[in-house]
Amino acid sequence: MTTPFTFTLHKTDGMARRGDFVTPHGRVQTPAFMPVGTAATVKGLHPEDVAETGAEIVLGNTYHLMLRPGPERVAALGGLHSFMNWPLPILTDSGGFQVMSLSSLRKLTEQAVTFRSHLDGTMFELSPERAIEIQALLGADISMQLDECLKLPARREEIERAMALSLRWAERSRRAFESRIRAGYALFGIVQGGDDIPLRQESARELVNIGFEGYAIGGLAVGEPQEVMLKVVEETTPRLPADRPRYLMGVGTPHDLIEAVARGIDMFDCVMPTRNGRHGMAFTRFGQINLSNARHADDPRPLDEASPHPAARTYSRAYLHHLVKANEILGAVLLSTINIAYYQALMAGMRTAIEEGRFADFRAATLAGWAQGDIPAV
Amino acid sequence: MTTPFTFTLHKTDGMARRGDFVTPHGRVQTPAFMPVGTAATVKGLHPEDVAETGAEIVLGNTYHLMLRPGPERVAALGGLHSFMNWPLPILTDSGGFQVMSLSSLRKLTEQAVTFRSHLDGTMFELSPERAIEIQALLGADISMQLDECLKLPARREEIERAMALSLRWAERSRRAFESRIRAGYALFGIVQGGDDIPLRQESARELVNIGFEGYAIGGLAVGEPQEVMLKVVEETTPRLPADRPRYLMGVGTPHDLIEAVARGIDMFDCVMPTRNGRHGMAFTRFGQINLSNARHADDPRPLDEASPHPAARTYSRAYLHHLVKANEILGAVLLSTINIAYYQALMAGMRTAIEEGRFADFRAATLAGWAQGDIPAV
Repeated sequence: MTTPFTFTLHKTDGMARRGDFVTPHGRVQTPAFMPVGTAATVKGLHPEDVAETGAEIVLGNTYHLMLRPGPERVAALGGLHSFMNWPLPILTDSGGFQVMSLSSLRKLTEQAVTFRSHLDGTMFELSPERAIEIQALLGADISMQLDECLKLPARREEIERAMALSLRWAERSRRAFESRIRAGYALFGIVQGGDDIPLRQESARELVNIGFEGYAIGGLAVGEPQEVMLKVVEETTPRLPADRPRYLMGVGTPHDLIEAVARGIDMFDCVMPTRNGRHGMAFTRFGQINLSNARHADDPRPLDEASPHPAARTYSRAYLHHLVKANEILGAVLLSTINIAYYQALMAGMRTAIEEGRFADFRAATLAGWAQGDIPAV
Repeated sequence: MTTPFTFTLHKTDGMARRGDFVTPHGRVQTPAFMPVGTAATVKGLHPEDVAETGAEIVLGNTYHLMLRPGPERVAALGGLHSFMNWPLPILTDSGGFQVMSLSSLRKLTEQAVTFRSHLDGTMFELSPERAIEIQALLGADISMQLDECLKLPARREEIERAMALSLRWAERSRRAFESRIRAGYALFGIVQGGDDIPLRQESARELVNIGFEGYAIGGLAVGEPQEVMLKVVEETTPRLPADRPRYLMGVGTPHDLIEAVARGIDMFDCVMPTRNGRHGMAFTRFGQINLSNARHADDPRPLDEASPHPAARTYSRAYLHHLVKANEILGAVLLSTINIAYYQALMAGMRTAIEEGRFADFRAATLAGWAQGDIPAV
């Protein structure tokens, strides 16, 4: 019998929290950043190299995996962990976000959303129950409820309608999840409500009444200013139970991460480190650096000689610049790796700072580092 | 003082040869296959992963590196080994082949070839002396003379003219190479003469008179049938000194390699393992396998459970198929790695077989393996 999913809160520092949770595939230290493995691969990285960055959990996208290769196929092949050779924990989203952003010919009813695949035009139906089934077939350690996610800004009545539908889907998701015996596996509810604080708080209250192993805040980083996002976060986290992890979905920049941890968030996922890496951008403790800039062409220095990751210490900026300009695969691979490693180092720094009761100092020092923009030119 | 470039012939088995050569960056066992690192990267592979396949030397392309990032820049950054983080031997070609195949507005004179960069239209001049200078700036352990390489079929007088020019350029290359003191570094001459055996033999004789640390056979695998290529090889190698390595440029398929070793060749380079890997093709001891084929979609078996390389043993065919269909970087990376590893395993198998005097048996068994096409379907 597997241990049940457990979250342990070790220490708080202001609203910032240091904890961990245990899944059937291992323990995850929080605050945690989850690299995104959209189509059963963190784009460009060997799974061993993802683990070497310090990542303890990755995210898989239900939408992408249901279209290709298909959850029944992944299950027949032994589940997503085995399929992608990633033995550590996996969280899968419910597919709802990508149905809204990627597919065409969507039709949303109380029962389900039907949509046309952006790959080959095949019609699919995704209901709360099917989303739970798919995530079980994939073998996700943490499943997410199906929700309806709007772009912001949106009208209040539209936000309220989507929030209420998401709550009814939360309840159906919970029932579907409990109809399976998956000891140690977790289901998270998703707080919706757009930028409307009372709706967010109502959503949180109702979700807590249903009861989940963890709570996500969804529908943010969808076009609103950062201060709106942070306001929603800081008004929502106090309404969530202290003994459950809190996950801010699809967020974000390093600055978003540090500000959200300061407001009580424990988990994040975002494509930014890999997507920006494929476009020649490096995240460093000096800020974000564009390696395609000509000023790097003759620079023999590494990106950051004090980085904990060898790729940021080994290769010269001149070489990375060359790879980016030549559109070489290795450029995308190295920068994606360096960026995920930077995100993991940032999370590790936050975890230690919270443990030691100096999160405010860490945050100020980190922001001051980013304000430099880069190390001085040679 | 560095040891001079030395080639040691340990054993022969028929015309097949087992040896090694020593360069300033280490020893290379022959017969050897050199993965191609066109633009200062073996496409898609970390340099550590190239070494892990068993490769002891890589090839760099002078044409690509002279255009971008530029040899003076690479020299200022410490040379190609340091730039691309590859501490083992490097052979560079002279740029002649790509000038003919990639650039536009070529003008060939006795003195040099001028051409327009295929990247940005800049005009460049490449003379035998400049090709030697560029390769010295890059820090190549083995440099190649500039030659003129024709596509086949070609008229005899055209082949003769290009062969004679290549010989005059060989002499200028040798003088330019000896004007620099680079102890332990090597310059190889290139036999030309198309598919005309007497011209090939004249070219070989004149090159040997000039004297080089090694001899290449160029201008093959440029459109002629395999039997023509092998005929040229078997009529040329006996005219080359036994105590110098012999390099068949730009070749080839695994079958080309085994047949050329049987005819006395010691070194090879080819883009095929990486290029085909990027297009979903895997080289295995069962033959070449197209991973995009739907028959792999549900196959839980690895490509080859007996492969010496973990990537060929770890990932299922279903997963590789998925990565190829989804056009994921990791698919290109894994298949390129698996293919280079297969080429290296093939070379290692040939080396051991020659040592043990059973090359003919090894060749027959290897060909029988490829004839299977693949392991039986499940």
